[in-house]
Amino acid sequence: MAIQQKLSLMIPGPTPVPEKVLQALSKHPIGHRSKEFQDLVQSTTKNLQWLHQTQNDVLTITGSGTAAMEAGIINTLSRGDKVICGENGKFGERWVKVAKEFGLEVIKIDSEWGIPLDPEEFRKVLEEDKHKEIKAVILTHSETSTGVINDLETISSYIRKHNTALSIVDCVTSLGACNVPVDEWKLDIVASGSQKGYMIPPGLSFISMSQKAWEAAEKSNLPKFYLNLKSYKKSLQSNSNPYTPAVNLVFALDEALKMMREEGLDNIFRRHNKHKLAMSNAVKALNLKLFADEKYLSPSITAIKTEGMDAEEFRKTIKNNFDILLAGGQDHLKGKIFRVGHLGYVNDRDIITVVSAIGNTLLKMRKISAQQVGEALVVVSKYLEEK
Amino acid sequence: MAIQQKLSLMIPGPTPVPEKVLQALSKHPIGHRSKEFQDLVQSTTKNLQWLHQTQNDVLTITGSGTAAMEAGIINTLSRGDKVICGENGKFGERWVKVAKEFGLEVIKIDSEWGIPLDPEEFRKVLEEDKHKEIKAVILTHSETSTGVINDLETISSYIRKHNTALSIVDCVTSLGACNVPVDEWKLDIVASGSQKGYMIPPGLSFISMSQKAWEAAEKSNLPKFYLNLKSYKKSLQSNSNPYTPAVNLVFALDEALKMMREEGLDNIFRRHNKHKLAMSNAVKALNLKLFADEKYLSPSITAIKTEGMDAEEFRKTIKNNFDILLAGGQDHLKGKIFRVGHLGYVNDRDIITVVSAIGNTLLKMRKISAQQVGEALVVVSKYLEEK
Repeated sequence: MAIQQKLSLMIPGPTPVPEKVLQALSKHPIGHRSKEFQDLVQSTTKNLQWLHQTQNDVLTITGSGTAAMEAGIINTLSRGDKVICGENGKFGERWVKVAKEFGLEVIKIDSEWGIPLDPEEFRKVLEEDKHKEIKAVILTHSETSTGVINDLETISSYIRKHNTALSIVDCVTSLGACNVPVDEWKLDIVASGSQKGYMIPPGLSFISMSQKAWEAAEKSNLPKFYLNLKSYKKSLQSNSNPYTPAVNLVFALDEALKMMREEGLDNIFRRHNKHKLAMSNAVKALNLKLFADEKYLSPSITAIKTEGMDAEEFRKTIKNNFDILLAGGQDHLKGKIFRVGHLGYVNDRDIITVVSAIGNTLLKMRKISAQQVGEALVVVSKYLEEK
Repeated sequence: MAIQQKLSLMIPGPTPVPEKVLQALSKHPIGHRSKEFQDLVQSTTKNLQWLHQTQNDVLTITGSGTAAMEAGIINTLSRGDKVICGENGKFGERWVKVAKEFGLEVIKIDSEWGIPLDPEEFRKVLEEDKHKEIKAVILTHSETSTGVINDLETISSYIRKHNTALSIVDCVTSLGACNVPVDEWKLDIVASGSQKGYMIPPGLSFISMSQKAWEAAEKSNLPKFYLNLKSYKKSLQSNSNPYTPAVNLVFALDEALKMMREEGLDNIFRRHNKHKLAMSNAVKALNLKLFADEKYLSPSITAIKTEGMDAEEFRKTIKNNFDILLAGGQDHLKGKIFRVGHLGYVNDRDIITVVSAIGNTLLKMRKISAQQVGEALVVVSKYLEEK
């Protein structure tokens, strides 16, 4: 019997929100031009830089992650600019659409959904670009639609070698889940969203901009107003915003970032890695198949094939019986996969619970034996015990 | 002695938020692709249409009011289009900037800050446009920066006579405060924001689009992605959103719109009108001067001149002594005026309180006598008693 109010969100966003953060959300708003709010902006900005491991500007936009990615593209590029777009999932596809909408010339580097992008292809295209015509490389780090993580570290090293191209990266489901050292990897533009590793509800997005990105912004001729990042940079100098920001979400952000600092980056990454391993190995023990290449599993989402079962029906059963919301497949994957989000405010118990729920459901469907359910839980415990 | 946590917001946004709405904000988020969220979108959309007095589509965007206004402009117009922009305050100025950024040819109709736009000027320019070159009239209904309400009813009648030009109206501080009958006045595009009459924190904005606006959208060639309203319209057909919406703010919106329906449009408008009259007449009784033309006072904001006093210092004193946050003047008006917001969740007591606080402060400064303070409160009571 389901009690909807006690829903457990195991989707790749919105992710579960800690009680403290929910309480911060319900505080009475304050004036966004007040000293109190400026103090908040100062504190969140400092902690955002910590999370991004960067000295770059990190700007907060009221809007979804898509707004931040669009901002990255339209602020640094001009009509007709040649760019590489990596595409191996729904979000990669989206950035191709954005690039084309704004009149960019797109060189697509793609791979099948579920397969990581091949860094060698980036290397080749970048090396062959002798006249430095490629202005940017746009790609998705963790592909939320398929549970694949692309090898950003290697790809970004090739972008650095090219020297003039900017990196514009969707880190929406990687930032705050695994290591994204913006300064070390010299990532120029990194976009992320609040309802992911940040542990707060949707409505804010973030974008970090390197010095090189700001220099490119001086030359960009694409029209923009609400998403003109120069206005945000200028306002940030006085810890302010160009337009009224989502004040209550900023209260929540401040609280969540403090919790993240308390846990520490290494612990956060270790927790996500452990959950990824526990989840993916349990899936195999449950006689299910991973959708993504096992060597490139996202730290945040495990996508699971449901050969012979309707994934949407399966998700519905899990929701009705256990109050656990799983994500479905997108586009051509609808009905063929389901996705378990383990991103943000997720603890070991959540992982044990979701594996139990999936295991019990498969058992009732006579897809597996009780022994297999038990073995899957043993696998989970083994990975969870690792420090 | 101030207790900052008990701050009373009497600024034109964020406005005070009812307890019920704050509680809705702190609910655990749900999946934005779930049936439960679709039900919410259906309910809020219906109530948004009620509030706009329209059968038009009313779309919800995660972003500030500026995002909605920009969306109205870039979705219906094309590079080089001729438009009229009404400008008599900071927001009018902003729409001129947006129009120019997107390559529109702007015919400016302006008046001094504090003075309403002259509808006759609109009539003349529109009548002289024999070749129907003017594609849109862009203006601000209630100018938040000055407390002036422009005569939208008359101006929109001239736009209708022109027949081809679209009306694109910033109703950010008029919608939910005074009558804005979208269908009756045939307003094509109306933008508003959550932190105003809606009584919820900032982060959502709204845009109503007429059939004529959608037809124009088919021809618009300005690039856009996050703010492409066609995506929102398409998603709305299944009560959904193209990108992850600010789920918790939608919880709040649903609650607030239900409260508004309970109060009823007429009662809401009457309350705002009563508060406007009580406030503006009290200001005169306190020997202060209104900044705006008294025949065109905004229902939401009273702007007050502080000849011989630093308005910023005055605001600070009121905040420190009474925990009431007033707004300052913007741009060249900084230090010269302060603004009292009486928009959204404001009751009679709030008006009495702010008049008392201002009166007492002036008394301490020896600007007025105790008798004048008393008389101002008598004036307030008189207007508040009117049904």
